Amino acid sequence: MPKVQDIGEQGLLERLQRFCPPEVIGDDAAVLSTSPGQSLVVTTDVLVDGVHFSHVTTSPEDAGWRAAAANLSDLAAMGASPLGITVGLGLPGEVSVSWVECLYQGMTECLQKYHTPILGGDVVRSPVTTLAITAFGQAHPHQIIRRSTAQVGDAIVITGVHGASHAGLQLLLHPKLQQNLTDAEQSTLIKAHQRPKPRLDVLPILWQILEYPPSPHLPIAGMDSSDGLADAICQICRASGVGAILEFNQIPLPESFHHWLTPETALKYALYGGEDFELVLCLPESPAITLVQQLGQGAAIIGTITDSSQVLLRDRNKKFPDQVLNLSQGFQHFSQ
Amino acid sequence: MPKVQDIGEQGLLERLQRFCPPEVIGDDAAVLSTSPGQSLVVTTDVLVDGVHFSHVTTSPEDAGWRAAAANLSDLAAMGASPLGITVGLGLPGEVSVSWVECLYQGMTECLQKYHTPILGGDVVRSPVTTLAITAFGQAHPHQIIRRSTAQVGDAIVITGVHGASHAGLQLLLHPKLQQNLTDAEQSTLIKAHQRPKPRLDVLPILWQILEYPPSPHLPIAGMDSSDGLADAICQICRASGVGAILEFNQIPLPESFHHWLTPETALKYALYGGEDFELVLCLPESPAITLVQQLGQGAAIIGTITDSSQVLLRDRNKKFPDQVLNLSQGFQHFSQ
Repeated sequence: MPKVQDIGEQGLLERLQRFCPPEVIGDDAAVLSTSPGQSLVVTTDVLVDGVHFSHVTTSPEDAGWRAAAANLSDLAAMGASPLGITVGLGLPGEVSVSWVECLYQGMTECLQKYHTPILGGDVVRSPVTTLAITAFGQAHPHQIIRRSTAQVGDAIVITGVHGASHAGLQLLLHPKLQQNLTDAEQSTLIKAHQRPKPRLDVLPILWQILEYPPSPHLPIAGMDSSDGLADAICQICRASGVGAILEFNQIPLPESFHHWLTPETALKYALYGGEDFELVLCLPESPAITLVQQLGQGAAIIGTITDSSQVLLRDRNKKFPDQVLNLSQGFQHFSQ
Repeated sequence: MPKVQDIGEQGLLERLQRFCPPEVIGDDAAVLSTSPGQSLVVTTDVLVDGVHFSHVTTSPEDAGWRAAAANLSDLAAMGASPLGITVGLGLPGEVSVSWVECLYQGMTECLQKYHTPILGGDVVRSPVTTLAITAFGQAHPHQIIRRSTAQVGDAIVITGVHGASHAGLQLLLHPKLQQNLTDAEQSTLIKAHQRPKPRLDVLPILWQILEYPPSPHLPIAGMDSSDGLADAICQICRASGVGAILEFNQIPLPESFHHWLTPETALKYALYGGEDFELVLCLPESPAITLVQQLGQGAAIIGTITDSSQVLLRDRNKKFPDQVLNLSQGFQHFSQ
């Protein structure tokens, strides 16, 4: 099995070119048409072997898929349609060429679902496998979804269940946890971890509900829940200078959680697990209700933006006392 | 002196925000306006400590400057004006915060000369310091400079002297080489290595000579000489399906080379040294002569595109025999 050091960086780049559209590579930079009157939206992520992915829980295909999905999710969270990504790769010489090709295969599988090309990149020697992705998208300047524009009275919509990705990771790390789950339940949770879906599909539905062409003051705020649901809501509230009340029993959980986890663990996974890559959107109640109806599949209104300075989680069934969420709790719940 | 591990990735990101325009950061992605009818041009580079920069020869300020300059040079080589860069940073916990701030300081010094903002990025934990830069720019779709469009009969223009950056590196690595150079000569060469200038200044001059608005068939081909002058000419010839004749005595060298280096070493530095970040442009003779006159300072016509399949270097003074250049020679001359 050839290693990177056997074929060299140039040889590897040539092999990886089949993952890129031939018309945009092979020069000093890639060239891409953008549409008039569109804003460019750019996001970047660095992933390091042993820190952000692991040979234990992640195949190269899944590492590639997840890296692409995370960046596309950032674009979705801004309201942007993807134009392309660049891939910077640092590799030790002893990595096998097929590992790198599988990584690209996984990235491409995710990207192709969203018609997004790889616009070339860079491959260099490094003592640790490192993946740096930059994603580009475009959005109408009036259609950009920011964190800072949540309004008091807005409904807080999440586009799907939370906690599934973290549960899938736990199943991979601790196989004995699988005992109380059916094969289908296991597979759903593991797939949520390995192959998360960026919610670009939400955008056309959203623009239709909010009426296109949009007004200059888009009545929406939002971000994705890649760092956890609690983090997303706290970030939006901080950026918008508002608070929120969340209803515990409105947060959609994977069905298996109800018989598999204690309510405390289920709540912890849902609020702090992260990497579900759903969107957290704040908008007026009427379009929020329509959005949830049209999305189906775990989408829900989970609370309301308030003029308080706190993010308060309450449980109408009184299983839990009210609790105030803040940005540092995610780290506390899963401290290393 | 605080280390990265003392303030954490979040703390570091907050400190680095002062290098970014506040209106484009703090959300899932950066947003940027582009002009109607422009193409987006994207390039990415990964730099790894110990492979691409070294604490011995490179201060963090210079590492930052050089990384920014390399990416801006790729944009210049495509004919594009920079819009911004993103910076992905992998850092061991024991790196000092001030090292990172100096790196950003150097990047910013270079970028500010070309009115280019840092549009955020990512900071993560890594066992090795890694810098992943993605630069994007815009160009009129008819003004993109490609490698593949050189025409037989074109003059080959280089925008400045070659070999200076490699000479500067040698002076830093082997201080005793400095003996035969004046302080001013040393400083010129070392600065060429530490603070190379991307040749974005060439573009407005070029467009004026070629008449703006341009025709759909821009009579130009080119790339930058970051991987060496010989590499650039071989790459252009290969992509365009042409050959070239180069005149050794037309290649502009730093003045000090004439009394400091043997002709053989001077030629080696100029052809294979790399990182001079000049542009290598192929265009018809008449605009080529005007371009060289207007650029001054080491710009020169060094040869002609031919219908041969070879890149031939000849010496009218017959100090050297004719030689055929090819893509693998750079590695042979400086094999590790």
